[in-house]
Amino acid sequence: MWDWLDTRAADREAAGLRRRLWTREADHALVDLAGNDYLGLSGHPRVRAAATAAVQTWGVGSTGSRLVTGTTAEHTGFERELAAFLGAEAALVFSSGYLANLGLVTALAGPEDLVVSDALNHASVIDACRLSGARRAVVEHCSPLAVDRALTAARETKPYRRAYVLTESVFSVDGDVAPLAELAEVCRRHGAALLIDEAHGVGVHGPGGRGGAYAAGLAGAPDVVLTVTLSKSFGSQGGVVLGPQPVIDHLIDTARGFIFDTALAPASVAGARAALELLRQEPALAERVHANALRLHEIATEAGLAATAPSGAVTSVVLGGAERTLAAARMCADYGVRVGCFRPPSVPDGLSRLRLTARADLTESDFARVCAVLHRIPRTDTGPDQCNERSGQRSVV
Amino acid sequence: MWDWLDTRAADREAAGLRRRLWTREADHALVDLAGNDYLGLSGHPRVRAAATAAVQTWGVGSTGSRLVTGTTAEHTGFERELAAFLGAEAALVFSSGYLANLGLVTALAGPEDLVVSDALNHASVIDACRLSGARRAVVEHCSPLAVDRALTAARETKPYRRAYVLTESVFSVDGDVAPLAELAEVCRRHGAALLIDEAHGVGVHGPGGRGGAYAAGLAGAPDVVLTVTLSKSFGSQGGVVLGPQPVIDHLIDTARGFIFDTALAPASVAGARAALELLRQEPALAERVHANALRLHEIATEAGLAATAPSGAVTSVVLGGAERTLAAARMCADYGVRVGCFRPPSVPDGLSRLRLTARADLTESDFARVCAVLHRIPRTDTGPDQCNERSGQRSVV
Ligand SMILES: Cc1ncc(COP(=O)(O)O)c(C=O)c1O
Ligand SMILES: Cc1ncc(COP(=O)(O)O)c(C=O)c1O
Repeated sequence: MWDWLDTRAADREAAGLRRRLWTREADHALVDLAGNDYLGLSGHPRVRAAATAAVQTWGVGSTGSRLVTGTTAEHTGFERELAAFLGAEAALVFSSGYLANLGLVTALAGPEDLVVSDALNHASVIDACRLSGARRAVVEHCSPLAVDRALTAARETKPYRRAYVLTESVFSVDGDVAPLAELAEVCRRHGAALLIDEAHGVGVHGPGGRGGAYAAGLAGAPDVVLTVTLSKSFGSQGGVVLGPQPVIDHLIDTARGFIFDTALAPASVAGARAALELLRQEPALAERVHANALRLHEIATEAGLAATAPSGAVTSVVLGGAERTLAAARMCADYGVRVGCFRPPSVPDGLSRLRLTARADLTESDFARVCAVLHRIPRTDTGPDQCNERSGQRSVV
Repeated sequence: MWDWLDTRAADREAAGLRRRLWTREADHALVDLAGNDYLGLSGHPRVRAAATAAVQTWGVGSTGSRLVTGTTAEHTGFERELAAFLGAEAALVFSSGYLANLGLVTALAGPEDLVVSDALNHASVIDACRLSGARRAVVEHCSPLAVDRALTAARETKPYRRAYVLTESVFSVDGDVAPLAELAEVCRRHGAALLIDEAHGVGVHGPGGRGGAYAAGLAGAPDVVLTVTLSKSFGSQGGVVLGPQPVIDHLIDTARGFIFDTALAPASVAGARAALELLRQEPALAERVHANALRLHEIATEAGLAATAPSGAVTSVVLGGAERTLAAARMCADYGVRVGCFRPPSVPDGLSRLRLTARADLTESDFARVCAVLHRIPRTDTGPDQCNERSGQRSVV
């Protein structure tokens, strides 16, 4: 029955593409530069306390769909507060960012519509476009001009009913920021709506961590819809769609990944809600991520390594060969520093890299440990030009 | 931009299809016969304690994909224990049952393959089939004969590479049990794999709550793969795929909803793990659900109402008209009893019904309250034949 899986596995093995799960122990001594807990809030005492209180009040599960039994006062309170924070009219919590993207796109777009999607959009955005059955145009990364042309070309080929342009606000792999204001302008000229995935934007970018859309002056824009994940800056789990009230009402009525899915666990909602409160009280948290990313970049450069200049939380240390990069990642792990390790086909040949993600709560002793291990990695001969070349990876979490 | 949504909303309004979120307060006095917390474990002290301890140990979020930082010792421990409990070779936790179905089907099936899907399968199974791009045959509900014919007919039309038959073990709406042994036999004759969604089976059906597949002698079968949700009997959140090791390894390497999604929150894993432990220690929990469903059925019948005979946790009180049913559901709510309310198009015209879901932890005072309110509902003139007609609803959570 499953022989074909063995063949596939052998092929991936030969291509160096097997993925292995490794089990994390509760080792607080580790310096984590691989996760997405940008603000370091997943373990913050107030975030933990809020989650614990929610478990006491509501139990562990939410017991049903949001529409049947799953909407607690915690869910609606958080939706109100997050919408206010981001300047959106309304918000709706899903059980994951993945399902939020699926739910949003499939509820808005169908076979008569057009979706224009950035070439480096996340897997959940790609799956959402596929599942919607809409006509698809995949366009050059971060190019308003390419979007403009795609909208024109598609209309000329065959008129579409409605068009949606999909982009991340801050891209997950290289941490680069989409040209949101320009994209919005192009969308307006074409009467298209702009759907922005703020997974890696909120908490890290924009004033007080309000994300890329807010920074681009698009807060509350009538033709913009955001998705936000609670699994990154908010240190929790879940996804949220934010936008005009009619869009949110439409999702409540029709989004399958909302209607036919169990509501997000109350503890996850409460944890994210406490994280939002912390971010509101301490807007400098977002800037600290960026400052710490600059510090990581500086440490890497001083160690003679070629590192990409961070525009947000991420700096990549480009080491060249895949084996060498893997060895370096292992060395980091031995020193108690967990880093991301990207090899082909995630990145072009010869541009394998360590991905260091800064967190707001990195300490002097964390930096010292990173410094020690980066100095042990043999210097690279990768030039700065090459190093700043985009990794071209389609998506990471 | 969103005018078309207003039109759509007005259409749904006119058809009585608007859905409204109502916010649940932390009201422990309510008797909940609408949720899926079959074993009443979501609020069990040991389940709460396990979730709380996980929050202390790991923080609120899992901080990344299972492959990057998200696999804690809690995840792998639970996978091992659930696989052992269900007699499966291996298991893999996803962040929801919805994404578990999407991940499984899209990783196994592609355009050259065939998926044969029961007409009443859950929305997540339907979306999974669509997203896979496989050829699809939707077949009569719970009919091994229809599956047999579909497999033969499809092969005759155009040969397929591989075939998958998809069914729920216990269907969510009417609580009816699929003919799993017969389906497995048909699958074997055709060399097809059987994918069983045990969302409503595990915890309620089979020996000690081991589910429909186990009861049908399919535990550990080499050509059967299960999905289980943690959001129902396990009182938590999440989804699990269980099956032969090569299938699980394949999912780790290729399932997009696994690779590109943040791992399930440690508290949700720990809560489900504690629930599993309770079920193992107290196998009678599963039987108690059924006994309590019989009790609800008896109460309804004695009140002069037409109720479906429960084969598991669910009994439906068929009231006929939509308005009358809605009024009855509201009356129940006023008495502090939350019930499901199903109207067309979820059910055929004239067969609107209240759906009562039993829980293992219903008390005498709960039954007394249910009895009091059911006696206030005007008697029905719906005959038992009509009443046992399948609701025909495609999917509920
Ligand atoms: C850009 C982007 N969108 C969506 C998601 C999905 O969010 P979640 O992991 O909360 O499901 C992720 C990462 O996981 C992401 O990086
Ligand atoms: C049969 C069935 N499969 C899958 C799911 C999805 O599970 P979850 O809500 O955990 O995502 C549900 C209900 O939600 C279900 O009823």
